[in-house]
Amino acid sequence: MDARHFLLLGAAVATAMAGPALAQNNKEPYVRVAEIEIDPARLRAYREAVREQIEAAIRLEPGVLALYSVADKENPSHVTVFEIYADVEAYKSHLETAHFKKYKAATQDLVKSLKLRDTIPILLGAKRG
Amino acid sequence: MDARHFLLLGAAVATAMAGPALAQNNKEPYVRVAEIEIDPARLRAYREAVREQIEAAIRLEPGVLALYSVADKENPSHVTVFEIYADVEAYKSHLETAHFKKYKAATQDLVKSLKLRDTIPILLGAKRG
Repeated sequence: MDARHFLLLGAAVATAMAGPALAQNNKEPYVRVAEIEIDPARLRAYREAVREQIEAAIRLEPGVLALYSVADKENPSHVTVFEIYADVEAYKSHLETAHFKKYKAATQDLVKSLKLRDTIPILLGAKRG
Repeated sequence: MDARHFLLLGAAVATAMAGPALAQNNKEPYVRVAEIEIDPARLRAYREAVREQIEAAIRLEPGVLALYSVADKENPSHVTVFEIYADVEAYKSHLETAHFKKYKAATQDLVKSLKLRDTIPILLGAKRG
């Protein structure tokens, strides 16, 4: 495989071509999609809280592989977070961290609604960082 | 910065901490979210087509940073693709590739609906691959 890229592959793919970030174990990554409606008047505070949380999780938690937070261009109060954990245990552990609990407390009055979808990876393809 | 992780940061963050995959230019990454409803009877064919397309795009296109395709656990015919391009030009270039055109042709009868959302990154945090 070309050294310039890696693929995180879903369970239905038989061949193991996992990148280094996934090489820590052989479990399937656990991927969730969060759809969040933020109070439009408090978007700035929300963005600051979610950035602090993501930065800490990526830095401190081996099992948090990616947390991508984006706002809809046409409706910036609609935020999507695409979350990749090494496995479901890493996700459960994430919920118990101080930085996640701080984020939840800081944003509970800013979040109007939250929908979480569990997913099954088809193919998680990414360039090597 | 800890060598074990990198962060792809949105435009609103002043400090440049971009990872190597983004170091090829200074433009903001272009991120889209595609929500796709697949014909439930033809999920297997769809999965094969999207895997082939993603594998080729990551391998062949320098500006395609990540394409993550996942199916909802509770409704596997609902597929989300989280797409990260180096910039909007990389996305436009992607649409002109042979592998993308092949995917579109192969899946046109399998896709019941497609919604694309343009987004603005808040924070794209990921472990180094």
